[in-house]
Amino acid sequence: MTLQTTFNAAIEPHLQAHGRLVLGLSGGMDSRVLLELMASYARSQSIDCLAVHVDHGLSVNAKAWAERCQQWCKLLGVPFLLESVSIERQGKSLEESAREARYAALAKHINHNDLLLTGQHADDQLETLLLALKRGSGPKGLAAMAPMMTFAAGKIVRPLLSVTRADIARYAKHQQLEWVDDESNQDTRFDRNFIRHRITPELTQRWPHIQQTVLRTAELCSEQEQLLDELLAEPLRKALYRDGSIKVVAVMNVSDKVRTRLLRMWLALSGLKMPSRDQLTLIWQQVALAQQDANPQLQLGQVQVRRFQQRLYVVRQWQSLEQWQQFIRVNQPIQLPDHLGVLNIRQAQAGNLSLAALNKAELRVVFNPQGLSAHPSDRGHSRKLKKLFQEYDVPSWLRRRTPIILCGEYVVAVGDLFIDRHFIGQDCELVWDKSAGFV
Amino acid sequence: MTLQTTFNAAIEPHLQAHGRLVLGLSGGMDSRVLLELMASYARSQSIDCLAVHVDHGLSVNAKAWAERCQQWCKLLGVPFLLESVSIERQGKSLEESAREARYAALAKHINHNDLLLTGQHADDQLETLLLALKRGSGPKGLAAMAPMMTFAAGKIVRPLLSVTRADIARYAKHQQLEWVDDESNQDTRFDRNFIRHRITPELTQRWPHIQQTVLRTAELCSEQEQLLDELLAEPLRKALYRDGSIKVVAVMNVSDKVRTRLLRMWLALSGLKMPSRDQLTLIWQQVALAQQDANPQLQLGQVQVRRFQQRLYVVRQWQSLEQWQQFIRVNQPIQLPDHLGVLNIRQAQAGNLSLAALNKAELRVVFNPQGLSAHPSDRGHSRKLKKLFQEYDVPSWLRRRTPIILCGEYVVAVGDLFIDRHFIGQDCELVWDKSAGFV
Repeated sequence: MTLQTTFNAAIEPHLQAHGRLVLGLSGGMDSRVLLELMASYARSQSIDCLAVHVDHGLSVNAKAWAERCQQWCKLLGVPFLLESVSIERQGKSLEESAREARYAALAKHINHNDLLLTGQHADDQLETLLLALKRGSGPKGLAAMAPMMTFAAGKIVRPLLSVTRADIARYAKHQQLEWVDDESNQDTRFDRNFIRHRITPELTQRWPHIQQTVLRTAELCSEQEQLLDELLAEPLRKALYRDGSIKVVAVMNVSDKVRTRLLRMWLALSGLKMPSRDQLTLIWQQVALAQQDANPQLQLGQVQVRRFQQRLYVVRQWQSLEQWQQFIRVNQPIQLPDHLGVLNIRQAQAGNLSLAALNKAELRVVFNPQGLSAHPSDRGHSRKLKKLFQEYDVPSWLRRRTPIILCGEYVVAVGDLFIDRHFIGQDCELVWDKSAGFV
Repeated sequence: MTLQTTFNAAIEPHLQAHGRLVLGLSGGMDSRVLLELMASYARSQSIDCLAVHVDHGLSVNAKAWAERCQQWCKLLGVPFLLESVSIERQGKSLEESAREARYAALAKHINHNDLLLTGQHADDQLETLLLALKRGSGPKGLAAMAPMMTFAAGKIVRPLLSVTRADIARYAKHQQLEWVDDESNQDTRFDRNFIRHRITPELTQRWPHIQQTVLRTAELCSEQEQLLDELLAEPLRKALYRDGSIKVVAVMNVSDKVRTRLLRMWLALSGLKMPSRDQLTLIWQQVALAQQDANPQLQLGQVQVRRFQQRLYVVRQWQSLEQWQQFIRVNQPIQLPDHLGVLNIRQAQAGNLSLAALNKAELRVVFNPQGLSAHPSDRGHSRKLKKLFQEYDVPSWLRRRTPIILCGEYVVAVGDLFIDRHFIGQDCELVWDKSAGFV
């Protein structure tokens, strides 16, 4: 099988109508070969393609590399884009920070249905797996890199993942390609380079097929992860409350192993990847099983895990919204602050708000319930919002994160909790789209 | 934590009343240290212990090693036993054959409640995991060695599994212990020695805690395996037929991943470890889904997988029992050939056989139904056994593996299928204990 055939077979199952091929072109041998394969395929199939070079600003040669990448693209008729990033370490390794900055820059160019192509190959996969081992990862980490995964609005595809570095080098030589050598690839202070230069050569010399067997290991680990996700999808669905919290009772009477896995899945949904086993034990013992009248909270990196009404919540550190306010007009949606989503008061048939009532004064959105009262349509009388938040079972940390719509000085509605009886009607409705994620 | 404390903590959860500690004593540093720890613990707790040295007959120094082991045991007051084995390769590697012979020799000394102690440590675990990676194993293989598992009539415990080789060496030096050096440990033609001498030193020099992180990887893989077994225990139970076969319909309407796992679990129960993914695909497509009227069979190493009445069977290669026969007397159980279990006609209250009828002639057991007829008590008339096997739904390959009890020339009973009406009574019963495993 030629490299072009391998490339085509890897790409084709994922091609979508009007989707482009976008190459992450470092200019190293692997992506240089991928550029050649992509250009040839795109030409023969009349598909739009694009190469993006990310300048990390880490090498004195960066400018020269970018120029060579641009030249190669010009020769092949492939549109070229340069992205310059600055790397913020924030306690992470330089490798990890650079990787994050690179993918963030690439993500900007991935539109719906686009495929981002990256040059990782079987030797990279072996290295990734050994790094996972060094970190003590379980099957999820050992699943290493997938040949395909969703990314930004499209997908990442790694067409060379089953191909060894030696095969890529053979192709590059045969096609008389040139490429740039990133001198940092020789720096064995980086863990990956250490493995590449000190471990992999020994392993592949003794076991020439180890890249293939390791690919199988990664696939088996990945399949097992998927199988567990499949088997626990329904128990997880039942355990989740509508606001994204998890019901303690739903994970109480299951085995320790099932509970640990369900908590992991719930935390992943909440955007927390890979908590340690010790952290999961703490979540269970110190938060979920805390005394009835306690208000337990556990700090996990940037977030807290808290309990409310026998449910567990992931609570982020938030900026205060006490001072925030914004005017809103019917049919003109506004963006709420701090990823709280989009709010819209729109005209609707069979709605629940009265346009006439809303038109009596200017409409505003605030987050501070202090001093406000309302009379929900299903209640006998008016009460302070503070009391109503309690009655409507809203966790304390969400009470200043729920948008309050005011008409002049009167409360129209509070989030999706209730509408004040004075604004009940049929020709408007309030839509709060929280799609930015769980609050 | 001292090594003795680690040892005690590893042993104590598994100690059973009247159980002994049995050490597999090669005489190398690890087992030599373990001998010291075991002797000290057994003395302080007044527990019986024993050291078994296995001579593999592979080294010219074997006799000298055995003698030194014996001397050490004598000095410590530990009973000593020597086992000599001969190694049959049968297509396996020398390492694997030696390992199997060694454990078979050790198994002979493990009585109910005994603990077999072996000297594997954290560096060994790292090697085992890298070997699993080299083979392309999934999580099951990556779970590597468990700190405890059932073995023969007792358990294996590996008290040093969390301890590095360096820590063991430190202890040995401090206690001024001597040990023997197996020169084959230096032979890097063996995969494990290659890893030990060429890979592990590089890894541990760079990452001094890699043995600990790899232990975590192995534990996470092991836990995940157990979780899957737990989640699929009930579906598997429902899918199994009473004779150990698996119902095709029960694994038809599940996802590919669930089916693959259930088939793996079923094959493991049938004594087949670790079939490949390709083999599982063949079992499903060529055997389970074969045309209705086909008689599909698939050879997998020593066994066949076959289909009968929409169930899958693991069928072993058997010797012909056509010529076999043996007399049997009431209350005197006989051993059936070829691991088919034990058969007994015993006196019983509320039985289903008549002692008086049985006493009319000599009783024999045969396996050849040719030319025989019987009249089951629940049928209207007598028929050939060949027809009766069909009617009772016995797979073709089991029809000459089911014991037929004759009284003179008359059929008394056929396995656990039926009793002939002429022998019906209340004071005897036929017991066929198949506990040797699935037929």
